[in-house]
Amino acid sequence: MEKDFVYIELFEIYKNLLTERQREMFESHYLYDLSLSEVAEPENMSRQSVYDAVKKVKQKLDEYESALGLRAKFGEANRLLQKAGSIELAEKVREILVK
Amino acid sequence: MEKDFVYIELFEIYKNLLTERQREMFESHYLYDLSLSEVAEPENMSRQSVYDAVKKVKQKLDEYESALGLRAKFGEANRLLQKAGSIELAEKVREILVK
Repeated sequence: MEKDFVYIELFEIYKNLLTERQREMFESHYLYDLSLSEVAEPENMSRQSVYDAVKKVKQKLDEYESALGLRAKFGEANRLLQKAGSIELAEKVREILVK
Repeated sequence: MEKDFVYIELFEIYKNLLTERQREMFESHYLYDLSLSEVAEPENMSRQSVYDAVKKVKQKLDEYESALGLRAKFGEANRLLQKAGSIELAEKVREILVK
């Protein structure tokens, strides 16, 4: 499974809509960079189950972005503020939105 | 059921996470200001069913706000920009976020 940094951004935005279990799987593989086998072993899961779980999380994240488009909107707001010369404000607004 | 304008704001933000049916019920009663009976009749529903449906939508909206806190965050970003004297930017950013 190709690791796409877009999903790390989507995860930051939408993680609270996921179950705790889904968050754990995604974090272990995507953020802490464990291999699928490394995530699977201590959980007594198969590599395939972890693969499926992470794939499902990515699908959910895509669905949320299709519905709410927050990653796109936050990016647009950020570009607008930067273009207006308010780099500091752009940064502060970003912090508020993605905290 | 008391009509609370907070829910209109939450609806604007999270409506795309609701089903089409949920959106219709909420819009008819909350936005177009039809009574529960007026929403119920053409749908061959009971007044109670509409009440329950709208109540469920409000619960979902509360859940989404608990999870993502977008109404609170958008408000905070707006206040920050206004305080920085960027009323116009505040308005533009709000349009981006809530469109």
